[in-house]
Amino acid sequence: MKLYTYDPAPNPQRLAAFLKYKGIALDTVQVDLMNAEQLTPEHLKINPGGTVPALVLDDGTCLGAVIGIVTYLEALHPEKPLLGSTPLEKAQVISWCHNLFSGLMMATASVLRNSSKGFVNRALPGPLDLPQIPELAERGKVQIDYLLPGIDRHLADNTWLAGDNFSFADIDLHTCIGFLGWVKKSVPEDCQHLQAWYERASNQLA
Amino acid sequence: MKLYTYDPAPNPQRLAAFLKYKGIALDTVQVDLMNAEQLTPEHLKINPGGTVPALVLDDGTCLGAVIGIVTYLEALHPEKPLLGSTPLEKAQVISWCHNLFSGLMMATASVLRNSSKGFVNRALPGPLDLPQIPELAERGKVQIDYLLPGIDRHLADNTWLAGDNFSFADIDLHTCIGFLGWVKKSVPEDCQHLQAWYERASNQLA
Repeated sequence: MKLYTYDPAPNPQRLAAFLKYKGIALDTVQVDLMNAEQLTPEHLKINPGGTVPALVLDDGTCLGAVIGIVTYLEALHPEKPLLGSTPLEKAQVISWCHNLFSGLMMATASVLRNSSKGFVNRALPGPLDLPQIPELAERGKVQIDYLLPGIDRHLADNTWLAGDNFSFADIDLHTCIGFLGWVKKSVPEDCQHLQAWYERASNQLA
Repeated sequence: MKLYTYDPAPNPQRLAAFLKYKGIALDTVQVDLMNAEQLTPEHLKINPGGTVPALVLDDGTCLGAVIGIVTYLEALHPEKPLLGSTPLEKAQVISWCHNLFSGLMMATASVLRNSSKGFVNRALPGPLDLPQIPELAERGKVQIDYLLPGIDRHLADNTWLAGDNFSFADIDLHTCIGFLGWVKKSVPEDCQHLQAWYERASNQLA
């Protein structure tokens, strides 16, 4: 199988952290998003979604969602589980991954893609060109300010995000926190539980 | 365990179709979204996310994301699998569910919540009040018109959405198609593969 990715971008970073933690090495091709290589006819033939990362399996099947790629790889490499071991853990991990993606990740992407000069007319990933909506960047900032204290409260009583063990949900949150810097946001100083969790998670990923 | 839900809403409908297909009966409480019962202190104590559906387990754990709830229930009730049986099927189902949620479902919700009088200042689910952004409703319509033909092309070569078997991805798409009616959209007549798939999926869910 072959992985098409672009190391500096947030979604590829989620997958890269998963691979590193599990000790999985993949044949990898960099697709330069800065030169819009993800929208060339060659890449759209590989992944019609026009995004990275994309994992192409030996039978030609393309998995274009990070959560799908890690689901596949976890089944092949069950050691050091990151998607939960019990039914409850599996449910908690996938719930947190879903909520982080549609919450903190999308809010941050909304700010970036609807305000940065680099994304004029490129307000969403994929082949569709869409104009920026400045109000959506403002909404994203309000969402970030609302969501971080809620995660902080959850971490007041929990070492890790989803159940008792370090998981892919923690990797996703760790990536989200890094992504905040792209829009000049960061974890507020009074979110002390989230700050302490970030140190713990960074140690796991070192 | 106890399910808090509101039958007419799209996310509860995804779960209801899963439960019906699998033959699972749950102790259920209706939370009337029309009267904002999901935002009362009582419900926020159950699910701080302020949404439905929410499944509360016997130990008090609340699962508030549909994908987490069905992951949990599929583990308890593996017969008539809807989340895939092989590693590849599992990866394809979760990928499609992810892409449908962040694509067609969110685009349709964007139209509804940013244009309907019933959602003034309620442009996103949950406790945070946010003003509508009319341009986002327009963007949602453009996305819908772009996404449906792409799904139609995929279904030209596939009986079901994710692998060889009917799955929760088909349930999600079936719910999305119904949800289109809320914003006066529907499957275009020239999306014949999608039209034929809708008949097949409706028969599975009858």
